[in-house]
Amino acid sequence: MSRRERVVNTLQAGQAQLIAAFEALDDSATFGTHTWERPGGGGGTARVLEGGHILERAGINFSAIHGDAVPPSLAASHPGSEGRPYFATGLSMVFHPHNPYAPAFHANYRYFEVGHGEESDIWWFGGGADMTPNYPFAEDAVHFHRTLKAQCDRHSVGDYGTLKETCDRYFYIKHRGEMRGVGGIFFDELSPVGVGDFETDFAFVGDGVRTIEDAYLPILVRRKDTPYGERERRWQLMRRGRYVEFNLVYDRGTTFGLQTGGHIEAILMSMPPYAHWAFDYQPEAGSKEAEILTFLQPRDWADDKLSTVR
Amino acid sequence: MSRRERVVNTLQAGQAQLIAAFEALDDSATFGTHTWERPGGGGGTARVLEGGHILERAGINFSAIHGDAVPPSLAASHPGSEGRPYFATGLSMVFHPHNPYAPAFHANYRYFEVGHGEESDIWWFGGGADMTPNYPFAEDAVHFHRTLKAQCDRHSVGDYGTLKETCDRYFYIKHRGEMRGVGGIFFDELSPVGVGDFETDFAFVGDGVRTIEDAYLPILVRRKDTPYGERERRWQLMRRGRYVEFNLVYDRGTTFGLQTGGHIEAILMSMPPYAHWAFDYQPEAGSKEAEILTFLQPRDWADDKLSTVR
Repeated sequence: MSRRERVVNTLQAGQAQLIAAFEALDDSATFGTHTWERPGGGGGTARVLEGGHILERAGINFSAIHGDAVPPSLAASHPGSEGRPYFATGLSMVFHPHNPYAPAFHANYRYFEVGHGEESDIWWFGGGADMTPNYPFAEDAVHFHRTLKAQCDRHSVGDYGTLKETCDRYFYIKHRGEMRGVGGIFFDELSPVGVGDFETDFAFVGDGVRTIEDAYLPILVRRKDTPYGERERRWQLMRRGRYVEFNLVYDRGTTFGLQTGGHIEAILMSMPPYAHWAFDYQPEAGSKEAEILTFLQPRDWADDKLSTVR
Repeated sequence: MSRRERVVNTLQAGQAQLIAAFEALDDSATFGTHTWERPGGGGGTARVLEGGHILERAGINFSAIHGDAVPPSLAASHPGSEGRPYFATGLSMVFHPHNPYAPAFHANYRYFEVGHGEESDIWWFGGGADMTPNYPFAEDAVHFHRTLKAQCDRHSVGDYGTLKETCDRYFYIKHRGEMRGVGGIFFDELSPVGVGDFETDFAFVGDGVRTIEDAYLPILVRRKDTPYGERERRWQLMRRGRYVEFNLVYDRGTTFGLQTGGHIEAILMSMPPYAHWAFDYQPEAGSKEAEILTFLQPRDWADDKLSTVR
């Protein structure tokens, strides 16, 4: 089997496994199947759930596309790739739970290959996973980060500290001066092009896909039935407004997709089902809502000594 | 009185007049007052109404700022302005009505001056007004465009056909292949720098500010009490999702403001109160909702012969 086939199999298996796990949790709704084709070559399958009791909107999109010539923006940063055929595959997902106390989750793992990986030095893996709570639960952030750190610790590539820092730098809403969430791990190229070993990198990414369930699902289970009212719902919708702002203004996958004209509905699958904006809203001093921005400041959530933190 | 003072007076008077008119229409809510200062010089007053019976969210923001050196992005396109002090003032407004049958409205009029207008050839007016319906009412689009055309016809500058075309080109959601609304008029520079006569241009812009009420208010009055249900509300929120996409991805005022760090809440005053995204939503064939994209295709709404159009 070729490299690209192996990656595709792993990502598709991950998609199926995650769908099974989340459908088992929430039997009120199923993931619909939307296949799409890319005029230039390839396509994908977006699996989308809307209106579930636990997940208000969730999408898990697999894609595998190819083209005759590496897009100019990528060719510019990858010498030797210009004008050559390419292949790109990815698994991308966003979960927007119904309960305001349950955090949103996003992950994306992708593989890019110029020519054929077997014959070319130009290939790389990108990806990561991050979480966006509306309320400050330290135990959730600790569980999430420790699970991702354990994943990193199982491999010789993927230094948790570095990937966490990259994630914190990336998920920053500059115009608000706010972090989008509690971060996680993120990497543009797991090993820089020409340096990495395929098997080593692939093992890390495959583990990353399989770790998603452990990292996020227990948190969703813990928060999904917490009683809440109008106030918490409204706050959730305002925080989702920030999510929209980040994705449409900064997210590279989204802005690249909108500019180059990918499958729009799959690209904007990340949008929350509902969002709310209110002028200069300031949560009540001393409230849980007021704590969130401080809570989201980058910190070493995986630190063993952190168990005393609130 | 200096040119800039005269423009400021006209814009501020327009702000006050519009607030009076809309508060008279909807006595359930008043426009709050939020003044803000710009660290580099100047500031503004955002007047914002939220949760009214007729207007769900509306903002009318006046600003007048100045600086020691024209921002590089503007200096690049305006030879002779580089490194010189500047003054910019504007009146910007967005109305998001509660009733899904009532269109949203946006207008913006602004004046930019390098050095002092009296001593400098470098000054220009920008602006325009446009409307975004969720449902296809030809009589609303006709009234709106005819009112703006009448404004244009009262002046020797501001050719309606040109300004309408510029507006149609601008309010286009490229990644959706959709128009944002039925357009209106729009101009970056009413008269190109160095060519215009201040009094002539100023008269057009002052008239533009005064025309807003005539152009939009009767439509709001006509639609504000139309009975509607969940279906129309949901459709409205989805169309507002498109509004969010346009403003965060394409709107030059918004993207420039986010990049340069203006007063964020005033910049994002244009966001709708609530927005909704659903995967690949297609309105029922033959429904009013299904007609909207065709309805929004640019057409000559001000044409006298259009009275037979549905």
